[in-house]
Amino acid sequence: MELPWNMVVVTGVPGVGKTTLCRSVSKDLKYNYINYGDLMLEIAESRDLASTDLQMFSLDFEIQHEIWKSAALKIKDMKRVIVDLHGVDQSKIGYIISLPVEIIKPDIILVIESSKDKIFRQRNEDAKKRINDTIESLTEHMDVLRNMMASCSAILGCNFAILKNDNFEECLIQMKNILSTIN
Amino acid sequence: MELPWNMVVVTGVPGVGKTTLCRSVSKDLKYNYINYGDLMLEIAESRDLASTDLQMFSLDFEIQHEIWKSAALKIKDMKRVIVDLHGVDQSKIGYIISLPVEIIKPDIILVIESSKDKIFRQRNEDAKKRINDTIESLTEHMDVLRNMMASCSAILGCNFAILKNDNFEECLIQMKNILSTIN
Amino acid sequence: MELPWNMVVVTGVPGVGKTTLCRSVSKDLKYNYINYGDLMLEIAESRDLASTDLQMFSLDFEIQHEIWKSAALKIKDMKRVIVDLHGVDQSKIGYIISLPVEIIKPDIILVIESSKDKIFRQRNEDAKKRINDTIESLTEHMDVLRNMMASCSAILGCNFAILKNDNFEECLIQMKNILSTIN
Repeated sequence: MELPWNMVVVTGVPGVGKTTLCRSVSKDLKYNYINYGDLMLEIAESRDLASTDLQMFSLDFEIQHEIWKSAALKIKDMKRVIVDLHGVDQSKIGYIISLPVEIIKPDIILVIESSKDKIFRQRNEDAKKRINDTIESLTEHMDVLRNMMASCSAILGCNFAILKNDNFEECLIQMKNILSTIN
Repeated sequence: MELPWNMVVVTGVPGVGKTTLCRSVSKDLKYNYINYGDLMLEIAESRDLASTDLQMFSLDFEIQHEIWKSAALKIKDMKRVIVDLHGVDQSKIGYIISLPVEIIKPDIILVIESSKDKIFRQRNEDAKKRINDTIESLTEHMDVLRNMMASCSAILGCNFAILKNDNFEECLIQMKNILSTIN
Repeated sequence: MELPWNMVVVTGVPGVGKTTLCRSVSKDLKYNYINYGDLMLEIAESRDLASTDLQMFSLDFEIQHEIWKSAALKIKDMKRVIVDLHGVDQSKIGYIISLPVEIIKPDIILVIESSKDKIFRQRNEDAKKRINDTIESLTEHMDVLRNMMASCSAILGCNFAILKNDNFEECLIQMKNILSTIN
């Protein structure tokens, strides 16, 4: 089977279940799977700059930015790839887009959403995602993510879909339907 | 009377009453009226590629895209024109912008909205617009349309207005007020 | 102390308390403060075109646009500056972005929001901001502002934060925290 999409970008707030979905779909539909954060860490390790996420995110902002760009350049010409990234990062100084639209031109951008309850439960189970967050702040983050990804889709002229991950199996089927449909 | 706007783009989801409004305003204010979909079909017909919408939308995606671009190139230098198009198309693979911002630079983008009830009633009456849709999916479509058109307006630096078509006569007056106001 | 941001853009609808916040933060953190509207009026005055806001906004649209661009060119290379502007202007012909993204490249865009009640109370107290507005129209304006500023942030790759000014002291602390944090 010829896969219809060369570059798929999958975004979502931490705890939404994005990575589990991406890994399942990649395996089932034979897409290459790239975790953007893991690739950044690999690059940082290869340059002896950091060996953990915590170390990497403590690096000088300019250096982090350079690693982020290097990762984008590695991804940009890949074929049949699902790129798993937040899309928009939230920190104490607000939001910043983490999709490098200048370099990576996806054929489709997916935003995974789910109920706030489910996201909070997931974050509590996952030490890495233990974020001190309120319902207001999560609502705002999800709104900004949807906004910014829709903007990117409008600018790039690429497809855009929002998937609800309230039931994993249903969301998986929906995602597989989209990613196996001839564009 | 000198018309204040050369290029007016009017968008809205199917069933919102966009075309009826555009035709009335064009007639009353002496704008040229262009239906983007009809123009695409004309181009497809002139090339012996399709003679119905259904045939056109069954063409290879690359060919559809080429027809879409040809239509944009025909419209781009027109004067005093109202261009009637969806703005954002919804399909089983998500959303895609249908306003070719690279080619057409509107002076103003209008988004027509109305109550979901009214939209569903209209779609049931109109065989061509018989879309199997839920309230959630329609809400999302309207949200994505507003988002993407606001992005286009921000990028192009053009005016942007949202009109509620809950009462046809009132909406018509509002639209005529905007489109006869000196910019 | 080295300030982390060179170009800060602060936006919000009239009556949200933006200017009071900007002036306090500028004073406390030693940022330069620029009111975009005041700068436009200065330029208009220096060219003998207008001596009040009302006169300026009655000028030919082309001339207003030229003054708007001149103001942007004056601001663009400034350092450690807080630029106070609406972000999106609302008028009887809809919305138009007032942030000149082609010229001014902020490091961070802030959107100040507050409860609609508070905004209406403030507008009633302030003769200059006496705007005949409904709750629906204000809600729409705030939504469009957030949308367009998020788009600008996505395009420019700059930080983006939304601050709630329901309690002035709390909002001031939050804004000072963001604007004194090393980026």
